[in-house]
Amino acid sequence: MDDNNIFIGGKPFMNYVTGVVMQFTTKNADEVVIKARGKFISRAVDVAEVSSKRFLEGSVEVKNIKIDSEEFKNDEGKDIRVSIIEVTLGKNR
Amino acid sequence: MDDNNIFIGGKPFMNYVTGVVMQFTTKNADEVVIKARGKFISRAVDVAEVSSKRFLEGSVEVKNIKIDSEEFKNDEGKDIRVSIIEVTLGKNR
Repeated sequence: MDDNNIFIGGKPFMNYVTGVVMQFTTKNADEVVIKARGKFISRAVDVAEVSSKRFLEGSVEVKNIKIDSEEFKNDEGKDIRVSIIEVTLGKNR
Repeated sequence: MDDNNIFIGGKPFMNYVTGVVMQFTTKNADEVVIKARGKFISRAVDVAEVSSKRFLEGSVEVKNIKIDSEEFKNDEGKDIRVSIIEVTLGKNR
């Protein structure tokens, strides 16, 4: 498992921001990937923006953003599509 | 005003998908920029994914994604930050 991934869900917002900031500070990561699906995508963007602009301003910035879709069958056999996002934050060189 | 911008809000989901598809088909646009703020960011990603993968598969793809923050003061003078996203779809060459 890659420790530099932060999956965004329904926990308190600042938990995720603290998680991102700690990866860069106490764990000295060069990159952190913030991942989310469906309705949590807006939140992932908020976490990326608050982490990089308020807490790590000048030292960390958005390096890459990917969006994609995942398809699966639900319990009734119906095809479901859900969007995903991955925002990569990285240290400025 | 740039007609190639689609702003995502609270209208029915397929209105936005139809808007994107029509820009590429009947209006022959080379690029369409899907924009959203705050909670509508998840929806903007859904519109981009459904438009490019289901309706325009093979002919249109995600060319660029930008995220940013806007800051303003609310009615009580408090500083408010809101995230924004811009997803650029473009025709394959």
